[in-house]
Amino acid sequence: MWVYGALCRARSLARVQQELFSASWRRGPACSSYSASDDPSRVQALVYGLHGDPAKVVELKDLELAAVGGSDVHVKMLAAPINPSDINMIQGNYGLLPKLPAVGGNEGVGQVVAVGSIVTGVKPGDWVIPANAGLGTWRTEAVFSEDALIGVPRDIPLQSAATLGVNPCTAYRMLMDFEQLRPGDSVIQNASNSGVGQAVIQIAAALGLRTINVVRDRPDIQKLKDSLKNLGAEHVVTEEELRKPEMKNIFKAIPQPRLALNCVGGKSSTELLRQLAPGGTMVTYGGMAKQPVIASVSLLIFKDLKLRGFWLSQWKKDHSPDQFKELILTLCDFIRRGQLTAPACSEVPLQDYQRALEASTKPFVSSKQILTM
Amino acid sequence: MWVYGALCRARSLARVQQELFSASWRRGPACSSYSASDDPSRVQALVYGLHGDPAKVVELKDLELAAVGGSDVHVKMLAAPINPSDINMIQGNYGLLPKLPAVGGNEGVGQVVAVGSIVTGVKPGDWVIPANAGLGTWRTEAVFSEDALIGVPRDIPLQSAATLGVNPCTAYRMLMDFEQLRPGDSVIQNASNSGVGQAVIQIAAALGLRTINVVRDRPDIQKLKDSLKNLGAEHVVTEEELRKPEMKNIFKAIPQPRLALNCVGGKSSTELLRQLAPGGTMVTYGGMAKQPVIASVSLLIFKDLKLRGFWLSQWKKDHSPDQFKELILTLCDFIRRGQLTAPACSEVPLQDYQRALEASTKPFVSSKQILTM
Repeated sequence: MWVYGALCRARSLARVQQELFSASWRRGPACSSYSASDDPSRVQALVYGLHGDPAKVVELKDLELAAVGGSDVHVKMLAAPINPSDINMIQGNYGLLPKLPAVGGNEGVGQVVAVGSIVTGVKPGDWVIPANAGLGTWRTEAVFSEDALIGVPRDIPLQSAATLGVNPCTAYRMLMDFEQLRPGDSVIQNASNSGVGQAVIQIAAALGLRTINVVRDRPDIQKLKDSLKNLGAEHVVTEEELRKPEMKNIFKAIPQPRLALNCVGGKSSTELLRQLAPGGTMVTYGGMAKQPVIASVSLLIFKDLKLRGFWLSQWKKDHSPDQFKELILTLCDFIRRGQLTAPACSEVPLQDYQRALEASTKPFVSSKQILTM
Repeated sequence: MWVYGALCRARSLARVQQELFSASWRRGPACSSYSASDDPSRVQALVYGLHGDPAKVVELKDLELAAVGGSDVHVKMLAAPINPSDINMIQGNYGLLPKLPAVGGNEGVGQVVAVGSIVTGVKPGDWVIPANAGLGTWRTEAVFSEDALIGVPRDIPLQSAATLGVNPCTAYRMLMDFEQLRPGDSVIQNASNSGVGQAVIQIAAALGLRTINVVRDRPDIQKLKDSLKNLGAEHVVTEEELRKPEMKNIFKAIPQPRLALNCVGGKSSTELLRQLAPGGTMVTYGGMAKQPVIASVSLLIFKDLKLRGFWLSQWKKDHSPDQFKELILTLCDFIRRGQLTAPACSEVPLQDYQRALEASTKPFVSSKQILTM
């Protein structure tokens, strides 16, 4: 979720942030000294002490591993992606910001090494993912509170587990929670090649929904179109093609979408609104264009369009951990049936983080950078 | 509802318009000849044959009165206001547009003179108002289909009856249908001195809701503030005052609004969004500034603000005539209890329509022009 804006400084959100962090950051980086060491109680982590350009502010540091308390879980991280929201959080442009210094990364999968005496939900060997944003997944090992973690089945691919907790959850909830869609209905989205976008295409196809997928024009556009169609996209069009009169032909064979998913803002979102069926909803979950959503008064009044936003962190706050676990298990079913695969990934060792960070902020990079530990 | 935009030319809305008009316009102006006459079968009406500036395109014409068929009602119009939406419709900027030539006016009250043999809902002497927009109320008499009319009790003031069918209905539905408000909750609105705005103030006060009312600065602003406070407004602030840090003081004593009602668009609506409580809804029902609604991506995602639109014509299409009658009776209860009064009105004889049209398009005119027949 590529989001700009200064809202993160709002008082109410600072409180949200504090609450989320107090739960998941209990043993945050003991940053008193960062010297390299062979001490097994010391582990490596990608730490930032200031908000700014990730290439400049993120450093590989040694952190001290905390002792495992009764309700704690010692986790060896296996893989953790670099998502747009991780970058935004480091830049300081996100709805919740950790206390600095902080370990980067909000998503990833780890394996349980040891558990405290009163831990019942997971056992050594289990795979776990963060229960909430802000955990700091870009590190080799950590001791977390049990309630900061959610167990995931081990019979899914590692890359799927590492990329399960944010993007597919966001995609699934947006498809389910705003419009009552039935098989045959259509959905339009922009940023269709993003992690969320690819999950939307696959989950929608599995649910019998037809997708119109907008992407930015680029070299090798046909290759991208083919790859999204292979995932189940019915139509893939560039932003420019979306504005052409020929778009009408698409809607001769497919119903006008009742749901639009917007990760861009600006002109791109104006175009999504224009394509929506009367009464339809546009859900904004990102703002890659760093421009606001602009809606004509006429579309709101006479076409009864609805503009909403979605933020998985808020959804989790409004739902119980069991509901989040249920969501994860639902997505695992899609994965086991071959209906949901991880986005194309480039695995990069944690130590080569600079290369991975650089690649993840380049435009038109179609593969997700995944740090491996 | 002061609305701009080209949506009225959209195909789906043209259909809405056609349906609305085929129901309410059955005996539309028989415009074959417009010569003045003393013939009792001929009546006077304000007719426009082209879209454009009301002062230029509206003319007083003689129309022929149709015979009263079995399901028809002969109505003598008593009073009909000039609303912003009437002006927009004449200008051609509205979500439904009548076939031209058309009689102006969407609201008003008339008295039944005679009824057809199978009419059961109203009888001679009853007061009636239009069931839908597009009836053409600016005329001395007309024969309408029974289903184009709704009876209203005669124990409310004439001006209240003449201004009941659009603005108070819009105000009440917007207060009831978007957020579940409880006594003590607050509502913020702009264009607070409009017909809808005054109805919002009064109905909200009757429901125990606290209102923050934004108005444009003007000469004699204190007089306007006093008059809105007399109606029940808790706070009245100018657009400029709304942007000042002192606004924070208001929210020490009043909860942040969960509902914002926007009839302006542009900067004014941006400011309403900024004042909304997290999770709150802004309902747009007009666009006086002729500028779109602009929402930052952050407000949508991290503050979970919802942007909606309201159009009474659509509400009526989605509800039964009995539900509209129930709404009218609910509003009559407010009127009888002294909780809802008509806006300050200037009565102008139909023949002096040019003066009334001119006054109704002037800025900062605080009294509504009502044509009397």
